[in-house]
Amino acid sequence: MSSTFGKLLTITTFGESHGPAVGVILDGCPPGIAVTPELVQRDLDRRRPGQSAVTTQRKEPDLVEILSGVFEGVTTGATIALVVRSVDARSQDYSNLKDVFRPGHADYTYWQKYGVRDHRGSGRSSGRETVGRVAAGAIARAVLEGVGARVQAYTVQVGDLVAEARELEFAEQNVVRCPDPAMAPRMEAAILKAREAGDSLGGVVEIMATGVPAGLGDPVMDKLDASLAWGLMSIGAVKGFEIGEGFAAAKMRGSEMNDRMTAAGFATNYAGGILGGISTGEPIVARIAVKPPSSIAIPQKTVDVHGEEREFAIQGRHDPCLCPRVVPVAEAMTCLTLADALLRQRAIESWRPRAGV
Amino acid sequence: MSSTFGKLLTITTFGESHGPAVGVILDGCPPGIAVTPELVQRDLDRRRPGQSAVTTQRKEPDLVEILSGVFEGVTTGATIALVVRSVDARSQDYSNLKDVFRPGHADYTYWQKYGVRDHRGSGRSSGRETVGRVAAGAIARAVLEGVGARVQAYTVQVGDLVAEARELEFAEQNVVRCPDPAMAPRMEAAILKAREAGDSLGGVVEIMATGVPAGLGDPVMDKLDASLAWGLMSIGAVKGFEIGEGFAAAKMRGSEMNDRMTAAGFATNYAGGILGGISTGEPIVARIAVKPPSSIAIPQKTVDVHGEEREFAIQGRHDPCLCPRVVPVAEAMTCLTLADALLRQRAIESWRPRAGV
Amino acid sequence: MSSTFGKLLTITTFGESHGPAVGVILDGCPPGIAVTPELVQRDLDRRRPGQSAVTTQRKEPDLVEILSGVFEGVTTGATIALVVRSVDARSQDYSNLKDVFRPGHADYTYWQKYGVRDHRGSGRSSGRETVGRVAAGAIARAVLEGVGARVQAYTVQVGDLVAEARELEFAEQNVVRCPDPAMAPRMEAAILKAREAGDSLGGVVEIMATGVPAGLGDPVMDKLDASLAWGLMSIGAVKGFEIGEGFAAAKMRGSEMNDRMTAAGFATNYAGGILGGISTGEPIVARIAVKPPSSIAIPQKTVDVHGEEREFAIQGRHDPCLCPRVVPVAEAMTCLTLADALLRQRAIESWRPRAGV
Amino acid sequence: MSSTFGKLLTITTFGESHGPAVGVILDGCPPGIAVTPELVQRDLDRRRPGQSAVTTQRKEPDLVEILSGVFEGVTTGATIALVVRSVDARSQDYSNLKDVFRPGHADYTYWQKYGVRDHRGSGRSSGRETVGRVAAGAIARAVLEGVGARVQAYTVQVGDLVAEARELEFAEQNVVRCPDPAMAPRMEAAILKAREAGDSLGGVVEIMATGVPAGLGDPVMDKLDASLAWGLMSIGAVKGFEIGEGFAAAKMRGSEMNDRMTAAGFATNYAGGILGGISTGEPIVARIAVKPPSSIAIPQKTVDVHGEEREFAIQGRHDPCLCPRVVPVAEAMTCLTLADALLRQRAIESWRPRAGV
Repeated sequence: MSSTFGKLLTITTFGESHGPAVGVILDGCPPGIAVTPELVQRDLDRRRPGQSAVTTQRKEPDLVEILSGVFEGVTTGATIALVVRSVDARSQDYSNLKDVFRPGHADYTYWQKYGVRDHRGSGRSSGRETVGRVAAGAIARAVLEGVGARVQAYTVQVGDLVAEARELEFAEQNVVRCPDPAMAPRMEAAILKAREAGDSLGGVVEIMATGVPAGLGDPVMDKLDASLAWGLMSIGAVKGFEIGEGFAAAKMRGSEMNDRMTAAGFATNYAGGILGGISTGEPIVARIAVKPPSSIAIPQKTVDVHGEEREFAIQGRHDPCLCPRVVPVAEAMTCLTLADALLRQRAIESWRPRAGV
Repeated sequence: MSSTFGKLLTITTFGESHGPAVGVILDGCPPGIAVTPELVQRDLDRRRPGQSAVTTQRKEPDLVEILSGVFEGVTTGATIALVVRSVDARSQDYSNLKDVFRPGHADYTYWQKYGVRDHRGSGRSSGRETVGRVAAGAIARAVLEGVGARVQAYTVQVGDLVAEARELEFAEQNVVRCPDPAMAPRMEAAILKAREAGDSLGGVVEIMATGVPAGLGDPVMDKLDASLAWGLMSIGAVKGFEIGEGFAAAKMRGSEMNDRMTAAGFATNYAGGILGGISTGEPIVARIAVKPPSSIAIPQKTVDVHGEEREFAIQGRHDPCLCPRVVPVAEAMTCLTLADALLRQRAIESWRPRAGV
Repeated sequence: MSSTFGKLLTITTFGESHGPAVGVILDGCPPGIAVTPELVQRDLDRRRPGQSAVTTQRKEPDLVEILSGVFEGVTTGATIALVVRSVDARSQDYSNLKDVFRPGHADYTYWQKYGVRDHRGSGRSSGRETVGRVAAGAIARAVLEGVGARVQAYTVQVGDLVAEARELEFAEQNVVRCPDPAMAPRMEAAILKAREAGDSLGGVVEIMATGVPAGLGDPVMDKLDASLAWGLMSIGAVKGFEIGEGFAAAKMRGSEMNDRMTAAGFATNYAGGILGGISTGEPIVARIAVKPPSSIAIPQKTVDVHGEEREFAIQGRHDPCLCPRVVPVAEAMTCLTLADALLRQRAIESWRPRAGV
Repeated sequence: MSSTFGKLLTITTFGESHGPAVGVILDGCPPGIAVTPELVQRDLDRRRPGQSAVTTQRKEPDLVEILSGVFEGVTTGATIALVVRSVDARSQDYSNLKDVFRPGHADYTYWQKYGVRDHRGSGRSSGRETVGRVAAGAIARAVLEGVGARVQAYTVQVGDLVAEARELEFAEQNVVRCPDPAMAPRMEAAILKAREAGDSLGGVVEIMATGVPAGLGDPVMDKLDASLAWGLMSIGAVKGFEIGEGFAAAKMRGSEMNDRMTAAGFATNYAGGILGGISTGEPIVARIAVKPPSSIAIPQKTVDVHGEEREFAIQGRHDPCLCPRVVPVAEAMTCLTLADALLRQRAIESWRPRAGV
């Protein structure tokens, strides 16, 4: 297992769905960043289960404790450890799954890989693992805000419902985290209907980062979009990543897609804020595809560890659509990726021969 | 700049479009792999410019020299260095671009990042940088073939033309590398037409890996799909990545998407061969979105390094659609990612408590 | 700050001397290793303060809690988090040091590096940071024991007293951890005398690893001795590292130092078990120089953060000689280094063309 | 095999003793550094074989070619590749060694590790591998000189002859690279006498870095002295590393060893310029123990790959004492380590809350 992400600013997460705690070590954070438990809690609360009817009903307060790296409200440059205790882990919900491979779930591949089975919940493949990402991401966000950068994600598709509007403040005012006031209630209704049917829905989350300085990203392997893809695709249930026009670029011509530059700056942003793997200074716009959660109440056929065919129904408490809770996780991975790239660029920019365009 | 990819099996590439040579160091390769210059050349020839009317007319033989790590036709376990000399670099083609930022191109962001301008061709952001990837990938492919895995990529979309059939042998028998015999000539015609218009086209390349053992990938950060996304998104011009159903998963329900397991194995493969970031043993299927090349002959407006607005037309020799030549590069990055994951899994599998399902 | 060590088997430590907790994440541990809190506690108890009159009198039970990665007494392959709460941190002992740079201490350099001052104890430069190393090392030790390897460290020098005998079982039966029964009481007396004088003593710790398979280490940069040097030199207060004959090799001739091979194996082991950066199968023997602790009760002259000259005396509880407590830390870093190298060699050895000599 | 060193500024070396070329990729170099082939050649010439009677008589011009990363005499920020062709590789010298394990040599351990035998010279374990280190180190040196830092190594011991004086300019004016005019001719004579006897001598090389800014090094794992130990111990034949007083610190008391600070700065430098793993701003002083070369002309007994006992004598051209040629290699690894640490500190220092002491 390899749970570390980043080069200068790194996170290493730990914890299983039904273990005593989950958390993260954030290392390489610059000193002098104002950090309080409240700052971290704000993002954790956005990820927390049980927020609304469209999320799992597991009740976890998800209160963070800062174990190191912060003194008198400020980062000291030292390694930061953040821990969240779990309180509502009902392992017995999973006793009927002890030997069963749930379809669409990681328990079969973990078994293939490690040969050890932790049948309680989803172990390390659970969405609960993302607590550490979000906690560390809140601090990375504070680093970015210090240079004027701002990261927000929001749900732009649930099933076949696609948001048109981008009212970003509204996105945090509805349970689906959709920025389209016309579409948000329809998405919510669709999710509730899927839950009633014992089923689940997929969707798309968009990430927007503004105020990101030009020059971030390290070609040719650590291009900024490649790093974002790595970070975002490492979130469970994410099946696709695109930047700027993304897959729609396949249908475009160079004469359409080339973002024209004028004396006033870029006239368009089809590239999504990154050219040649380096940020342009324009908004970075990316999207991720989120699959429908595999844990559904509808009875399913599968096999067990002995290769016998079985039918079973999942009884635990699960999210009918992951998008609303993926939003803060996607923000966290974006903040961590951008803050790491920012630190890396700081390392070389004092050598830059020229003063700027 | 950061030009290293991989953890146990690593590549580090070097070289600019108009420098004397490009190449790669492949480190961590296991010993005993049969490697000849011909083996490497086979993939390089598939990437080479000037192969057909749908690619750039720059003439480069791209002959590889093995400088180390291979003795008497076999890898020794030592670091492998591969170098390709450039012969047809017409830097003068670029003299009119000396101060101009080409729209859709990396020269603006490189300037922002490093403050130094190498106006000849595209420097490090050129597609020529991928020579090293392809050369190293040929050896990674040999490692994979030793365990029965096979990786092939092919063009499935050019502009709005989408391939239906997947006749994989046919893919290498047409200049577009399209696996659909009905669509290949239409794609070729579309590319030629775009070239005549001085314009360029985008597309989609699909990657298929069969025979990949279950258990590859290292959650939660080095999930196999996250590593593939990193590797493939680090290729120039790639704007999106998806695995299995990818963005189409957004419209699916859990009851549809969950791949059912039977005593005979998986009944479907919507996941694309990866669950929880670990290979299932099913074919790995991924797609990447390739943008239309930014270098077009149509006159464009832009600014120069002094911020002055300029109009210019690119006179160099360029690809009107990158897909045919991205195919071997996508294979290379996939082979490198999978071979690295294979080595990493070898490290732990001897400790696996059980013998297999 | 960068608190991660290792490539496949990695540790990331956290925690300051006077913070609420210290700990570690151990990632990449193979599955199926039997691990209990008691197994970890055994090594922690050997590192714990307050064990005897020759160590600091700070009282810390140093009880470990396993937060993840172990299920039903066995590692699952998942990330392992280990936490130890601090209970006897008397920060007020340090209030008179608030603005003072202690001579021989890291507070000046931390101030130079980060510009933030955590004056309580030593922050991250404290020996307390090694709790995480020792906890993780206990699990690495279990991995090694599975292949028959055994690691022991012991004090071979205190001040100018040098041990001759190597009675390794005796080493754990005296408070100095000296393997020479004749010298142990003299070393103990010397340490107590230094303490009474308000002063401190340096020393040398030797590390012996037996049963280590041949073939570990990854030239040319991750040679096994280079990795051991990195790991052991990262322990606070260590000022030197040597392998085999070490600095004594400077006086030897090739004809003396070359370890002759016979049909029965190596006839000598001047190399200390490593040739060309790869283990030979012979015992690995290394030594580290441990400086006298900088925290002494004798009044010292120094400057404060304002550049003013000051005189002060340290009032906290400190070790008069670090060797006895460095012993388990040195073992831990050696176990971690060797277990990582073992995993890396497992990754490639299945490709080895031959069956063995 | 793992041939990469460094985090932001990295080298990856390649090449075997008797292959067609050796070289290095230096990645992460800041832009705007003046680099010419002559700058690199200067250090390569100091490492080159055949410089004097005290080194091997193999004749290699070791001319460097810069393949990438430098444009119009200045680094562009792009990956730098440096290659040196080998011309005087007499593989036939080694034909009598085809199956023999040379005592004190890496061929046994490489065989154990990889199971493949490249009997020509020493393959990758040859000192020839250090060409790449020295070439890249010359550029790292240029980076350091830009901030006023200067690195010099020199021979302070050969056999039992120990230098007292430190006349650093004189060190480059004698073939032993000894800074003591009284001792240099005696060392030279001792080496020539050992060569005549078909034997070899060990020694000690000291490294001095002045003008290094305070604040370099990243605790707790990438402490500056730990990184230096890693880098220097990765050089072949190095058996020990110490910083400041090193092993002599074992005999010191805290009251002696603590470097007192005054308003004018440090009064002493027993620590060797590093406290808590971070540079103090004082000169960094380290020493490495260099074993006598294993390749000697005196007949030796050993075994072959079949386990049969054999007697043989080495006929190739070898160094009778490595110190003079280790000097530029030690400088290179020191420059690379310090330049990497400098870049890393640049990444965080703009966040430092205070302006400096």
